Parts: sequence; C-alpha cells; structure tokens
Amino acid sequence: MSDSENAGPSLEEIRALVGEFPEADAEAGAAAAARQAELTKPAGSLGRLEELAVWLARWQGRATPSMERPRVAVFAGNHGIAARGVSAYPAEVTEQMVRNFIDGGAAVNQLSAWVGADLRIYEMALDQPTGDFTAGPAMSPEDCARALAYGMMSVEEGFDAMALGEMGIANTTSAAALCLALFGGEARDWVGRGTGVDEAGLERKIAAVEAGLDANPEARDDPIEALCRLGGYELAAICGAAMACRLARIPVVLDGFASTAAAAVLHRLAPGGLDHCLVAHRSVEPGHGRLLAELGKAPLLDLEMRLGEASGAALALGLLQAAVACHNGMKTFAEAGVSGKEA
Amino acid sequence: MSDSENAGPSLEEIRALVGEFPEADAEAGAAAAARQAELTKPAGSLGRLEELAVWLARWQGRATPSMERPRVAVFAGNHGIAARGVSAYPAEVTEQMVRNFIDGGAAVNQLSAWVGADLRIYEMALDQPTGDFTAGPAMSPEDCARALAYGMMSVEEGFDAMALGEMGIANTTSAAALCLALFGGEARDWVGRGTGVDEAGLERKIAAVEAGLDANPEARDDPIEALCRLGGYELAAICGAAMACRLARIPVVLDGFASTAAAAVLHRLAPGGLDHCLVAHRSVEPGHGRLLAELGKAPLLDLEMRLGEASGAALALGLLQAAVACHNGMKTFAEAGVSGKEA
Repeated sequence: MSDSENAGPSLEEIRALVGEFPEADAEAGAAAAARQAELTKPAGSLGRLEELAVWLARWQGRATPSMERPRVAVFAGNHGIAARGVSAYPAEVTEQMVRNFIDGGAAVNQLSAWVGADLRIYEMALDQPTGDFTAGPAMSPEDCARALAYGMMSVEEGFDAMALGEMGIANTTSAAALCLALFGGEARDWVGRGTGVDEAGLERKIAAVEAGLDANPEARDDPIEALCRLGGYELAAICGAAMACRLARIPVVLDGFASTAAAAVLHRLAPGGLDHCLVAHRSVEPGHGRLLAELGKAPLLDLEMRLGEASGAALALGLLQAAVACHNGMKTFAEAGVSGKEA
Repeated sequence: MSDSENAGPSLEEIRALVGEFPEADAEAGAAAAARQAELTKPAGSLGRLEELAVWLARWQGRATPSMERPRVAVFAGNHGIAARGVSAYPAEVTEQMVRNFIDGGAAVNQLSAWVGADLRIYEMALDQPTGDFTAGPAMSPEDCARALAYGMMSVEEGFDAMALGEMGIANTTSAAALCLALFGGEARDWVGRGTGVDEAGLERKIAAVEAGLDANPEARDDPIEALCRLGGYELAAICGAAMACRLARIPVVLDGFASTAAAAVLHRLAPGGLDHCLVAHRSVEPGHGRLLAELGKAPLLDLEMRLGEASGAALALGLLQAAVACHNGMKTFAEAGVSGKEA
C-alpha cells in the first residue's frame, strides 16, 4: 500500500463525506409499514422479519424492497501485530484462506452460494502487513486513506444489500485496540480468544492492545486516527465500504466483531452513521456483545459463530430474503378474505 | 372426526410405538464430526451450524447429510374452547387461513418457497371442533387416535427433514392446558396473549385452562390422556407426525409454542423421545421459554415471532440448508493447503 501514484482522496476528503450522509426514505418506510399491517397475520407476529422488510424499504427507497441482488464482500489484510503471537494461526493463513475463497472451498463460498449472492474477495497487499501498532501507527494517513477508498470502490449501484466481512490473521487484536480507542474501558474488556488462542495467548493479546494504545495516544482523540493507528487495511476497507453504501443508500449487513469494530468508526464520527447497517449475528468473541451495546444494535442471529470471513453476514442475507419474500408475496386480509381481529 | 369406519390403530397401539423408537446413527454422527474438524475453519467456529450438520447426519444416517428435500406440514383444526373468548380472532379464521394457505397468500407459503420445501396443508374436520375442555374431554380416545394416525400419514420416506406447524384459533389455550398437565406449575405460567388478546382475554384464557384441568383431572396422570382431553386435532396430528418421523429417522423441526407442546407428549412418554426434533425459534408466547427449559432445547432463532403456521420452522430449514452446504461443500485443510493451528 505504498505506491504514491494515483493517490486518490485524502483522509480529510474521506472524512468530509460523513457530512453528506443521506437519511433513509421515511415515506417508503411508512408505506412498507402500512403494508405489513394489512398482511394476513396478527400485527407484529412476524417480529423482526417485519422490521427487516421496513428497514430495507427505508434504505432502498421503495415500499416493496428487493433482495434479488446481494453482494458479499470479503476484505483480506495482514497485520504487523501478528508477529506478537496474538493468534492461534500463523500469518500466512490469511493468504492461504484467500486462495481457498478463490477456489470455492471456504464457508463463505457455500453460504454465498446458498443465498445466491455475488461473492467478491478483495486482497489487500498481503505481502505488506501493516506496522506493528505496539511500536507506532499501523498505517500512515495515506495508506489508511487508500484502504478506505479501496473499500468504497467495492460498492456498485444496483446491489440490494451488501454483506461485509474480513479475513486477517491477528485482526481481532486490532479490532479490540480500535474498540478500546473508540469506546474506552480496559483492554481485557475487548479482547477474546479469536480463532482460539490459549490463556498465554490471551494475555499476549491484552498486553499488545495496551501497548498499542500507549504507543498511539492520538487514537483516543479521533475515530479516524484510531482507524489509521490501530486498524488494518481490511478494517479500513470495511469502513470505506460502509461509507459508500450509506452514500448510495445500500443496506449493509455487518458480520462479526472485526467488521462491526471497523464500521463503528462511522458511529463515532456521526450520530446515526450506522443506521443503514445491521449486525448479522452475535459473535462468540466477547468484545462483540459490548460493542453491540455501545452501538445499540441487536444482532439477528446468535449461533455461537466466530469464523469471520462474512459467514454470519451471508447467513443473515438469507433472513433478509425471507423477510422480503413475506413482505412482497403475502396477501392482505382483504385480498384473502380473512376476518380481522375481533373488537 | 366421528366416522367409525376404517378405525385405524387404537390409542394403545400408537402408544406402544414409543417402545420401538430407534436411536440415532452414532457412527454417521461421529464421521460427520470428524469431517467438521478437518474443514478450513478454526474448530467449532461455525458454532451451531456445525452441531446442526452433525445432528442431521446422526438422524439421516449418513456422514454427508442432505437438505434438498424438506417438507413443511401444517395441520389445521378447530377448538371447542374458542367459544370461550380466548382468542383475538373468530374461529372461522382457521378455515379462512387454510384457504389462504391453499391460495399461496400466507407467510408459510412465501417461506416454504424461499427454502424450496414441499408445503402440505392438512385440514382436519374444521366444521367439527373438538369439545370444550372446560366441560369434559376435547377428544374421545378414538378421535385422538385417528388424529395421531392422520399426522403419522403425513410422513413419507425420502424427505430430508420435516417442519411441523399448526393453524387453529384458540390453540395456544389448548397448548397451555396441555403443558400444565404435562409439566405442572400454575395456569398463568403457560398462558400468553397468543394472536393478541387483551388483558380481559388473558384472564379468560387462564380461567379456561384452570377449568380444563379441573374438568379433566386424568390429564395429569398420563401424557396421552392429556393430549386427548386438552389437545386438539392438529396438535395430536403434530404429535403423530413427530412419532412417525422418529420411526423413520427423519429429522424434525418444530415451530413455536403449540407445535412444541404437542410434541412434548413424546418427551413425557419416553426419555429422549424428542432427540430427533429441534425447536426452530423462541416464540414471543411466554410459555414457550418455559417449555423449552423443560425439554432442554435451545431454539435456533429468536426473532420475536409468534405467528405459528410453521413460519419459524420453515425459516429454520434455511439454516439447516446452510449448515449442510458448509458441511458438504467446504474443503479440508489438506485439500486447500491451509496451515493448521500453531502448537
């Protein structure tokens, strides 16, 4: 990520886009809610499926939302912090898994196919990990801006929803440091076992997060600084993709802890900055529950998953499809000749 | 349900089938678990999707389970207790909704189509409601046996899984009475708002359940007696379908409160009698949570649904398909050339 040609937008230009975030289409949402009330079921009895249909209507700007064209985007990056023994897996697994994604052998391939999603893998300079944030910033402002812009480019018009996920050995350590900078608390509040480190590994992760904040005190002052100094290429790209989706009013499904942490930068930059995003599932990673509480987001699924790679997000796309199928396909009480509630 | 020709099996003959319940195929389950450990993901990181794949393998008796042919069965019946003002909807809605199912306008139609399931609607003498259980048994032993046998006939070989659901105005009152007989407690522990009764309706439901147990003390002595005296045709049919699935080792997905209550009869008849069943979702109906605790079952989904008609079960079939897609389609570490966990 060190090529200075075609530098693209600066970090400050990207930051300024937050001021242009559009709101949802309230009229389309109201029309969708009115339709829900007419469908042949007791009001509210489809629970969150009703909410999902109305939320999609609001962000897609149409009373009958569509889920025919979802995209799953997986961003992969490597982390300097991996050298500190914070993961159960060696750093080369990032690249090996990217190859597995391309060959169709990973969970996200099966889940994307199950949901009929367009799966794209975005490989981000895997041979050039970010800096070790215990010794200074993970990314320069220029590299962070480039990663954000790269994520933004993954968003194309015409998609009904976008599921965002990541692959990056050691990135739960980066996500924990990012959360600590964004939301405060103690390092151990945000650190978990990731892909499965042992007790000693967990202590190394906590120490790395603490050292990261000590080496980058500026990260606590500003969300974009936090992303540059403690994040990673794939996390910045997810943040950029979520921004571009907001600008295009494309609904977003965030995957697990690392993806939600990356997007949380927008929550800290602007109130309501994540209103166009839902969180697919509650990860086993304990920091995720705390992060969801900070964001005021209730995850759709709780299946004890902790894989990342957009696996939970792809699964949640299925629920969005089911919600849209009910919303668009069900008959109203009048159409079906079904009696309403008794007075 | 009063025709005495072709009487079919007696209640005692059906009860005796519980003694013939087969166990799962431990070998297929072990082979599936061994495969899960080799797939390109940290062990256990797909959480309940891994469990689901292994559970399907155990009951289907093959290490690579299939979810290509699921069936959704919805049983509809009418309840004498409906005359007691225990529902927010008039009793004729049962038949109107059956027509809506047949015309393709209900939630379960959209969700069955979404998951590619074969949807069958079983209409059970809708013009002849069960007896009002506050004044005596809801069903005679003969009628209950016939309803159980009818449910058993819905199960055909060749289906990969069977989702069971119901439609029957007033059947959450019947389900609450059944639970009280099977598991004890107080009537109000098991009664909720169903399709949306008001406070007075809730009190009428509680009173009806109490009166039902007073009028049918034998219901507390035996699960089959409880089903006959407090259940309904559609609930007996669900119980029968769950029995037939067990005999054929077809995995079952139970829908919400009423469906789970119907199947709970098997749990009380035989330890492990519901091992071949999973519960799709946690219904908003408060008795469901209590029932799940009694059964030791963790639901897959918690989407604040309370519609019935197998809607939650159809949704859960989608998760089973996703689990199977991962299990059968992912590459192993060796196949993909991905490094394993570091020592």
